[in-house]
Amino acid sequence: MAAEKSKILVLGGTGYIGKFIIEASAKAGHPTFALIRESTVSHPEKSKLIESFKTSGVTLLYGDLGDHESLVKAIKQVDVVISTLGGAQVDDQVKLIAAIKEAGNIKRFLPSEFGIDVDRHHAVEPVASFFGQKAKIRRAIEAEGIPYTYISSNAFAGYFLPTLGQQNVTSPPRDKVVILGDGNVKGVYVTEEDIGTYTIKAVDDPRTLNKVVYFRPPANVLSFNELVSLWENKIKSTLEKIYVPEDQLLKSIQESPFPANLMLALGHSMSVKGDCTNFEIEPSFGVEASEIYPEVKYTTVDNYLNAFV
Amino acid sequence: MAAEKSKILVLGGTGYIGKFIIEASAKAGHPTFALIRESTVSHPEKSKLIESFKTSGVTLLYGDLGDHESLVKAIKQVDVVISTLGGAQVDDQVKLIAAIKEAGNIKRFLPSEFGIDVDRHHAVEPVASFFGQKAKIRRAIEAEGIPYTYISSNAFAGYFLPTLGQQNVTSPPRDKVVILGDGNVKGVYVTEEDIGTYTIKAVDDPRTLNKVVYFRPPANVLSFNELVSLWENKIKSTLEKIYVPEDQLLKSIQESPFPANLMLALGHSMSVKGDCTNFEIEPSFGVEASEIYPEVKYTTVDNYLNAFV
Repeated sequence: MAAEKSKILVLGGTGYIGKFIIEASAKAGHPTFALIRESTVSHPEKSKLIESFKTSGVTLLYGDLGDHESLVKAIKQVDVVISTLGGAQVDDQVKLIAAIKEAGNIKRFLPSEFGIDVDRHHAVEPVASFFGQKAKIRRAIEAEGIPYTYISSNAFAGYFLPTLGQQNVTSPPRDKVVILGDGNVKGVYVTEEDIGTYTIKAVDDPRTLNKVVYFRPPANVLSFNELVSLWENKIKSTLEKIYVPEDQLLKSIQESPFPANLMLALGHSMSVKGDCTNFEIEPSFGVEASEIYPEVKYTTVDNYLNAFV
Repeated sequence: MAAEKSKILVLGGTGYIGKFIIEASAKAGHPTFALIRESTVSHPEKSKLIESFKTSGVTLLYGDLGDHESLVKAIKQVDVVISTLGGAQVDDQVKLIAAIKEAGNIKRFLPSEFGIDVDRHHAVEPVASFFGQKAKIRRAIEAEGIPYTYISSNAFAGYFLPTLGQQNVTSPPRDKVVILGDGNVKGVYVTEEDIGTYTIKAVDDPRTLNKVVYFRPPANVLSFNELVSLWENKIKSTLEKIYVPEDQLLKSIQESPFPANLMLALGHSMSVKGDCTNFEIEPSFGVEASEIYPEVKYTTVDNYLNAFV
């Protein structure tokens, strides 16, 4: 039946972005499966999440990337596989690719991405190597001829906006703000709920087959200076702005150990190099989410910040 | 000649800890070689460092982990290989192991470690997976029968102490301080210069062959509360202490994206679980650096903090 919703399996569903993907999938009426490790069920933080998955009608499957048989068995039950495995497990996705290849039934695979396009960036080390791992996974998928969609969702609004990217604070700054570079390059901030919604829309869409889906909802494409100015207008106050020039940032990256250097180099890629927006999306390799799904009423940065005034 | 100093090759020498290893090696009179990528020579930040290596008499070799032939050729010129490759390149060390195996002449290999013992920790994800990658490299070395030493140098003093682990500040706190857990578990802080000195002493030492070398210089084994108290005495002022209970920290780890969750989980392992010090060093698997090298006048935390008063 053509109208039937595809069955979706999520790996890494109890992780940061995974839970939003699972919730969006269940909400959209896809039969949704979460592959979790048996040890995860008793994890103090994750057990609550797993209960909420059950309430949403999600089917739990027990398995592990290291257990090829359980992986193939899980994959054979579904049409689409979405990986939201964490940054330390990127390389391990070769095992998932091998299992998808063996199962032979998957109509679409979305590897763990959900950030900047790892084939179009100007990041320095150690982010260059980290993006390189994700790019290698892309090449492995393409080499195996597995149908794919790569999600380039840019910055997580729910992580970035509540602090305006400032560390060690729990609400947006009211006195001073650190700005990487000159603050004029455009970033993109998308809420985790909207990342879930757009991602699930993409899984059955022929327009996104073997393409990158970029998230650039127009109201949320903002320079850091615009973001600060938006916030200043809301709190009716002017912040002291501390600009960090690129050479000083590069020096800090060079002089920080892992993973502090990784955090700083991500900031460099996004806020100094503008890797969320510094290229045109060509139809040969990509589509833009808000353009192909205009029906999604996404949360704007402007609205999002109102909660913190 | 038995008294001749072994020749040392360092990979990752322009990285955070690598430069201290190179400097210590050259200073101790070891013929020292740095394998660098040709592209690194023109890197704005690293070119200065490379010049200083040349001044210290270090021989530069050009090569890349991906180029097996260049790797084998470099390895054949030396006796000892030290890897200080960054966190995103841990897995890639399998290529280095293959080259060492083929070269067949290496008397000691030190893989990239320089932190907590990855076989004896209580870290949660994503650090558990990250440490797992390092442990996998250990197992590969052991399986190939390559003579090794693993350096567990605990926390980098030069990174941690100038801010007392507080983010977004450039000097130790003077008003308030965030403390993970109850602040009573013991951490270990060692300056990068001392890490270089102890590491180079270990490379030719039969007592460290196929062992872990732990760095626990007695004056630098301090709980976070002791560290704060030491600082308070120096500035003659009392800080407001904000304690983050373990369950709240675990929740933050769970609700932060990569790599912020990695930073927090490292803090959890070190400051809540006490993974620097929560086990006895048994002669079957390890030795303690300040015990076997009592001649090293290490920098104490107490002295180190004086520079910031």
